[in-house]
Amino acid sequence: MPAWDTVAIVGVGLIGGSIGLALRERGLARRIVGIGRTPARLETALKLGAVDATATAMAALNDAQLVILATPIEQIVPLAREAATHLPAGALITDAGSTKERIVAELVPPGEPNLGKEVHFVGSHPLAGSDKSGPEHARADLFAGRTVVVTPAANNREQDVDTIEGFWQSLGAGVARMTPVEHDAALAATSHLPHLIASVLAASTPERLLPLAATGFADTTRIAAGDAELWRQIFLANRAHTLRALDNFEKVLAAFRGALAAGDQRTIIALLEQGKAIRDSLGS
Amino acid sequence: MPAWDTVAIVGVGLIGGSIGLALRERGLARRIVGIGRTPARLETALKLGAVDATATAMAALNDAQLVILATPIEQIVPLAREAATHLPAGALITDAGSTKERIVAELVPPGEPNLGKEVHFVGSHPLAGSDKSGPEHARADLFAGRTVVVTPAANNREQDVDTIEGFWQSLGAGVARMTPVEHDAALAATSHLPHLIASVLAASTPERLLPLAATGFADTTRIAAGDAELWRQIFLANRAHTLRALDNFEKVLAAFRGALAAGDQRTIIALLEQGKAIRDSLGS
Repeated sequence: MPAWDTVAIVGVGLIGGSIGLALRERGLARRIVGIGRTPARLETALKLGAVDATATAMAALNDAQLVILATPIEQIVPLAREAATHLPAGALITDAGSTKERIVAELVPPGEPNLGKEVHFVGSHPLAGSDKSGPEHARADLFAGRTVVVTPAANNREQDVDTIEGFWQSLGAGVARMTPVEHDAALAATSHLPHLIASVLAASTPERLLPLAATGFADTTRIAAGDAELWRQIFLANRAHTLRALDNFEKVLAAFRGALAAGDQRTIIALLEQGKAIRDSLGS
Repeated sequence: MPAWDTVAIVGVGLIGGSIGLALRERGLARRIVGIGRTPARLETALKLGAVDATATAMAALNDAQLVILATPIEQIVPLAREAATHLPAGALITDAGSTKERIVAELVPPGEPNLGKEVHFVGSHPLAGSDKSGPEHARADLFAGRTVVVTPAANNREQDVDTIEGFWQSLGAGVARMTPVEHDAALAATSHLPHLIASVLAASTPERLLPLAATGFADTTRIAAGDAELWRQIFLANRAHTLRALDNFEKVLAAFRGALAAGDQRTIIALLEQGKAIRDSLGS
């Protein structure tokens, strides 16, 4: 018997589509409903087998036990509130948003344990993005071996947090539990700053020189191809932490620039060795 | 009949080893001699079939018509001078160094058309690096479809430049001809600055956060795993151009920081769109 009767996925892009494919491949849901605003994307998700049914209205959630909001982050709070008005008592909502502090503070504020009608939200962030987007790039194994950060609020019920952690584990992911603020501070350094730097590097490269770019440039700037509007929302939502991560980057950059201008070989090699040590410890 | 009788490769790492494998696979040389300082690396290159014979002394060059110096850049000038004392008249030397201005100025100075005994040098730079190094990562197809920049000096003989361009084309590469200074200015932006930025990004990331790094961080910092000493030499040799490319980067970075601090959504999205446009026009 599947773990879930009806699961609804709101937003059937790369992440939402991959959740659907993983649920189906692993036989975890009797029925998967895809909800979105764009009929063509819903059609693609249906054709690829990521969902069993599609809808453009949130009323289609009325028999779901679990809803995953896999939309741009600025839509998550309003969609969660709207979903709660349609869901049956006992339903759970989670999300796949790249920032957590504001979303969790609004959806699980102190003293209000649910969104109404016994519907609860637990925040999540699967670390499984891509420079590709859209349901056509979805993969059933997108979460296999990846980490999903689950970010309970102080008054989330432990049973709900366990259920959401179990959901991601059932898709093949490992789970890390952090507070929303710990998550946003960490991801500012490991995801949002790298995106900012890759974008700036690409934006500052004269286009006429691209024929002389090799794999190093291609790798270093790959994520700059990500959707600009999605990333605008992330930078705005995680502004303070991203600026602090940028402070750290700029200190090291200033040290490298100073050493290069001075021809200080010892400092240059020390900085290169430091970067190599960190990168080597990450693995491929 | 092979295009070359004896080709010597000095430095049998990733680049030198790949040149050997490509020559052999394409039947371009009767005999390939590998020269290096480290017997274990020479042994690996021999076992992998990248070379037919090995030597640790430059005297082994005595019957080569073509020598490729595939060593760290600071060794290229002294090795070219030493090679010239052993080579037969009419032999050609080229290199695979990532910077060209100093090397070409020293080896093909105005008014001195050859290194002695009718031995000539033409500078080259195959844009086919990797974060991997060593002959064990060499591949016969490393140059296929890649660009090799050939950087003639004012008084290189046209016939020699043509021969060296034909050599790289015979390995499957496309050739771009540039002056040494044009090359170093362009590569500062497309290769040396990206390496600097990737190193600084890796070096400024707290190691404890690496479990929260996903593919975006891995891509953006991949080249930081490159050999620190090789890159110290490149940065020192191409200091002025790299600092100018860094100026451009820092201007765009300051604009992004200012927009982020001010919550200026319009500028943030404009910068992200600009980076995406450049990256998209590069292709995957």
